[in-house]
Amino acid sequence: MSSSFGRLFVVTTFGESHGPAVGVVVDGMPPGIAVDPAELQRQMDRRRPGQSALTTQRSEADQVEILSGVFEGVTLGTPIAMLVRNTDARSEDYASLKDVFRPGHADHATFAKYGVRDHRGGGRSSGRETVGRVAAGALARAALATVGVTIAGGTVQVGSVRAVRRDWEQTEQNPVRCPDAKAAADMARVIEAAREDHDSVGGVVEVVAMGAPPGWGDPTMAKLDALLGAAMLSIPAVKGVEIGGGFGMCALQGSQTNDVFDGHAYLTNFAGGIAGGISNGADIVARIAVRAATSIGKPQTAATRQGGTTTIEIRGRHDPCICPRVVPVAESMMGITLMEAWLRQRALRGRDR
Amino acid sequence: MSSSFGRLFVVTTFGESHGPAVGVVVDGMPPGIAVDPAELQRQMDRRRPGQSALTTQRSEADQVEILSGVFEGVTLGTPIAMLVRNTDARSEDYASLKDVFRPGHADHATFAKYGVRDHRGGGRSSGRETVGRVAAGALARAALATVGVTIAGGTVQVGSVRAVRRDWEQTEQNPVRCPDAKAAADMARVIEAAREDHDSVGGVVEVVAMGAPPGWGDPTMAKLDALLGAAMLSIPAVKGVEIGGGFGMCALQGSQTNDVFDGHAYLTNFAGGIAGGISNGADIVARIAVRAATSIGKPQTAATRQGGTTTIEIRGRHDPCICPRVVPVAESMMGITLMEAWLRQRALRGRDR
Amino acid sequence: MSSSFGRLFVVTTFGESHGPAVGVVVDGMPPGIAVDPAELQRQMDRRRPGQSALTTQRSEADQVEILSGVFEGVTLGTPIAMLVRNTDARSEDYASLKDVFRPGHADHATFAKYGVRDHRGGGRSSGRETVGRVAAGALARAALATVGVTIAGGTVQVGSVRAVRRDWEQTEQNPVRCPDAKAAADMARVIEAAREDHDSVGGVVEVVAMGAPPGWGDPTMAKLDALLGAAMLSIPAVKGVEIGGGFGMCALQGSQTNDVFDGHAYLTNFAGGIAGGISNGADIVARIAVRAATSIGKPQTAATRQGGTTTIEIRGRHDPCICPRVVPVAESMMGITLMEAWLRQRALRGRDR
Amino acid sequence: MSSSFGRLFVVTTFGESHGPAVGVVVDGMPPGIAVDPAELQRQMDRRRPGQSALTTQRSEADQVEILSGVFEGVTLGTPIAMLVRNTDARSEDYASLKDVFRPGHADHATFAKYGVRDHRGGGRSSGRETVGRVAAGALARAALATVGVTIAGGTVQVGSVRAVRRDWEQTEQNPVRCPDAKAAADMARVIEAAREDHDSVGGVVEVVAMGAPPGWGDPTMAKLDALLGAAMLSIPAVKGVEIGGGFGMCALQGSQTNDVFDGHAYLTNFAGGIAGGISNGADIVARIAVRAATSIGKPQTAATRQGGTTTIEIRGRHDPCICPRVVPVAESMMGITLMEAWLRQRALRGRDR
Repeated sequence: MSSSFGRLFVVTTFGESHGPAVGVVVDGMPPGIAVDPAELQRQMDRRRPGQSALTTQRSEADQVEILSGVFEGVTLGTPIAMLVRNTDARSEDYASLKDVFRPGHADHATFAKYGVRDHRGGGRSSGRETVGRVAAGALARAALATVGVTIAGGTVQVGSVRAVRRDWEQTEQNPVRCPDAKAAADMARVIEAAREDHDSVGGVVEVVAMGAPPGWGDPTMAKLDALLGAAMLSIPAVKGVEIGGGFGMCALQGSQTNDVFDGHAYLTNFAGGIAGGISNGADIVARIAVRAATSIGKPQTAATRQGGTTTIEIRGRHDPCICPRVVPVAESMMGITLMEAWLRQRALRGRDR
Repeated sequence: MSSSFGRLFVVTTFGESHGPAVGVVVDGMPPGIAVDPAELQRQMDRRRPGQSALTTQRSEADQVEILSGVFEGVTLGTPIAMLVRNTDARSEDYASLKDVFRPGHADHATFAKYGVRDHRGGGRSSGRETVGRVAAGALARAALATVGVTIAGGTVQVGSVRAVRRDWEQTEQNPVRCPDAKAAADMARVIEAAREDHDSVGGVVEVVAMGAPPGWGDPTMAKLDALLGAAMLSIPAVKGVEIGGGFGMCALQGSQTNDVFDGHAYLTNFAGGIAGGISNGADIVARIAVRAATSIGKPQTAATRQGGTTTIEIRGRHDPCICPRVVPVAESMMGITLMEAWLRQRALRGRDR
Repeated sequence: MSSSFGRLFVVTTFGESHGPAVGVVVDGMPPGIAVDPAELQRQMDRRRPGQSALTTQRSEADQVEILSGVFEGVTLGTPIAMLVRNTDARSEDYASLKDVFRPGHADHATFAKYGVRDHRGGGRSSGRETVGRVAAGALARAALATVGVTIAGGTVQVGSVRAVRRDWEQTEQNPVRCPDAKAAADMARVIEAAREDHDSVGGVVEVVAMGAPPGWGDPTMAKLDALLGAAMLSIPAVKGVEIGGGFGMCALQGSQTNDVFDGHAYLTNFAGGIAGGISNGADIVARIAVRAATSIGKPQTAATRQGGTTTIEIRGRHDPCICPRVVPVAESMMGITLMEAWLRQRALRGRDR
Repeated sequence: MSSSFGRLFVVTTFGESHGPAVGVVVDGMPPGIAVDPAELQRQMDRRRPGQSALTTQRSEADQVEILSGVFEGVTLGTPIAMLVRNTDARSEDYASLKDVFRPGHADHATFAKYGVRDHRGGGRSSGRETVGRVAAGALARAALATVGVTIAGGTVQVGSVRAVRRDWEQTEQNPVRCPDAKAAADMARVIEAAREDHDSVGGVVEVVAMGAPPGWGDPTMAKLDALLGAAMLSIPAVKGVEIGGGFGMCALQGSQTNDVFDGHAYLTNFAGGIAGGISNGADIVARIAVRAATSIGKPQTAATRQGGTTTIEIRGRHDPCICPRVVPVAESMMGITLMEAWLRQRALRGRDR
């Protein structure tokens, strides 16, 4: 229960950060969808550590192996299990943390919850768990593409630097994955400064889905906003999500934020493509608040399992800003969410549009 | 599926805004919890229309009838169905809207989804659907109180007026339900101005749960943040949610936002009481972005079902700012979410703490 | 959780036998299905007590009220709540049973489970809970009829009397609901004898679905056999279920029970229309073992809540054989199960066939 | 959805019979349960092909690898993924079957469902899928043992030979896994005869859980009977299930089958340990109808994908009677079901008893 997302398109991840492997089972994939292993690996590589000077130097090839559900290049409609072995898990970096609860991390809450924990890295709370999400997201995107839905995303804020433009073609051209080349350079400087300071910095990631027809999502408990909210807030380090106008609408009047539909298109998109929980045909837009990475090198006060406190300096190899690596994860969760909504609508109406 | 929240504490609402009734079935309630009908009705009355000059004048007594699951004043552990009859549904107000899609409303998306709709008011998309949520929330709160968890909430922003204080005792003392008496007066003026202008205004509602032990919530897909996010974004008109520091953390450094735990308490609460998806024992804090009500009296351009456009002025009786009435709904969804997390943790560990 | 069946076509019943009402919420119904109130009531009447001399004389009109989800005669695609008030609940009949656990009943297990119970009749364990199932089943059948699926059922064994013929037109012509007129007369005599002896007698009910296309159901955990098994074994007093050849196949060879498919039809139907968990286009056939009703007038030894024993004679008004009234319930659960399988297949393929 | 069992103890299998691997993810396992790899492998070996002359000679070591969720010998409370590589999948045996639908198999139904299939063996419909169930079952049993619940099972009928005794110590002493040594010898002869005839034979498997407290299971849709029914009917080749007295009760009177509870124990067990869907403290007893294996060497008429018919002789290496290998699978599904019921009851009451 706790490790699955979705009811019809069920994505279940498994694996500890420093265990033998991480992976995912995707159940509910429609049959007959072509799976391109190169594109799957390309998405994995976007999330992979060590891509650029701005990310952690933990070195994981993250080669994904498909164990089931794909035959002769197409999906069978059966569960697709995908596996990535952990290879560069330097567990010894964590030996000294066995009895220490790192600040900002889930160490204390995890121990309180389970009464036992794998102290080597974050276990399930590690960003490494998102390996499976990106693999599942790649399949979701392949399926969504067959009905004309595409997904883009990028870092739109780092520290107090905000992107102005949304040129999604640009995002893979800079290591920040920012859709605004000019802002990207500023953001990179903020990240570098944080790294040099043995600190980390937060930001905002935006994801957009284009081409979804009206009618996906439900009017009450399973609003598309709600599914997306759950998807996005299940990503490590994300502490906020907004759809369309989001928090910026709070200070505005209804006469300003009521999107006018002229029978063909929406003239504005304060609703972020979702009206009353149901997609309305406009772009679906979500933004997420990504807190600064909790693993920092600076000395910090930490509680011990025995009830005292100590001072720690987290060594390991960590990201000064995780936004660039969150981008493919957030895109994946958007894709996974839309698969769920799409399949639910197919169940309701028995057809794709 | 689409009308239920939760797996262990399952809250299913039913009813159209202008149909015979609205209601809810709550399944998974532990047995032996005392149910106080007066407190249940008190919560219903907090959500009820017509409470003050700031809300809609639709007049509904919203008398709730318990149909099952309670015997001799305590819960049986069986499903609790609760019913509220619709009495003041002036459907004739909506006759002219049969073939019109109101701007900002879900009318167009609903019709695209189902191919049929109850045009009298918002149907399921109406705020009236939240009647069942508040009834369920009252039961959730009664159960949570047995383990020392209490919930408070209030309007903390209207338009550009923000509350500074968080005096939860204050919220029922002013019609805005603002925990800051001084800000409340300013907010009331903003709302009055919107009403006089036949317009509406947005705001922010904050909800806090006190007394939850560490260990509720899960580390990956079912993070407590994610459950709360889904719960909050399933409330009509909510387009954003943030936990703890939320979007405000994006511009900060890890060394600033890593909450220090001294072995007894958290010295700050940027995590909003949830670390890595799991409650950490601090207050659980969520804020939601409430867009301005979409029903406004001003003339607006609207699409027709036939593909053209027309100009409409929505009559009916509507709220110039829905924040005061969203407060009990958001508190209820917090309670419902915590019930789910609590029961999941009981399943995992077999005990309450 | 415990009171719902299905994931896509979710049927949630509520209500205690002697509480204010019993009812059901059906969520996931496709929109645009015509609902005929007379046919709905006709199905309710088939389950109703007091239909014939062979059933209990408790007198309940069982008038069903639709509270939501139907507008201008068709389904909206939103949850359909249906309510039946309890009117003839003679709770005083049960006063003496407050501290007694009736043999064969769930009284002891219920008390052990919840620590509290409504002692007036069986509470949720009463056959009265099936009111909601039949209401939901009527809607399921209306929807299934739009794709050519029809359901029939009947009593095929009472005591040691077995039906030989399967003339489904016959079932409503005799009070036993037996598809074999000759066997029906013998069965009626067996039931009468049990009644005169203040006893009860068991039997077998068979349900058949005709017209389902191949492809419904899943190959592993959600085999159509498994869904049907859960549905049937959730009916009070049912302690066995078999599909197609069932237990009778155990003594046979593979060369006898492998149904030959000639490219157009199956020449035999040992599989009961389900091969490897998936419908194969043949009739779907299930049979259920219905134990003798546990409420009997004969003196019986019963345990008391205080730990001793006593002798009881259950007065109330009970059924000497519940098979005739189980028939519409079993048909309903077949319909509900097929709705689930149908909608899942629509989600998978995006079309009806 | 289709590949998972359970809501709180979620068992998800993956893998095709002739793909790279089969496996399982177990989510919801309580933390702190000791896992003994040798016992896990012993259970795998009980299901493994090639154990005796009575089973298929396909040679699979079925070495299980734990990929996650276990750390330093105990469960972490996180998902446990387990993997078994397929090594002796002679896919060439199946090349001739690419366009043929084997009688009794799911080939035709699978193709109708998905529009595509892995024709090499049964794909997901193969008995090989149960590898993951047995691995999950071993963990379930380890957890259940901590609260005193143990599970036994055996073959109680082959062809028309029935076991009289239930000596569970005996089952691992004979290749039929029959709890009656004398009957076992007769059963072995029946199986040998079927093999020599290039045919197969059906049977009945019984599973018993001892030590479960009263209170597990729910009164309506999620009766323990219903959960068990779904679990058992999800096992390949199972076409019937009965609880306690089952179909044998149909010919009896209520006065015969009402189990008397004397305040301490049940004097009979017609209910099979489940009253009104809830465990009553007596042994939980289920029996399943296992049809004769559909893969037989005898010439058979089969439909082709092109719409004609052909004659086939299935070569491969198959089981003349699958009951001995179904025993550990059925025990596993009993264990998995009881885990689900146990955890649900913990959620309801917050304690183990």
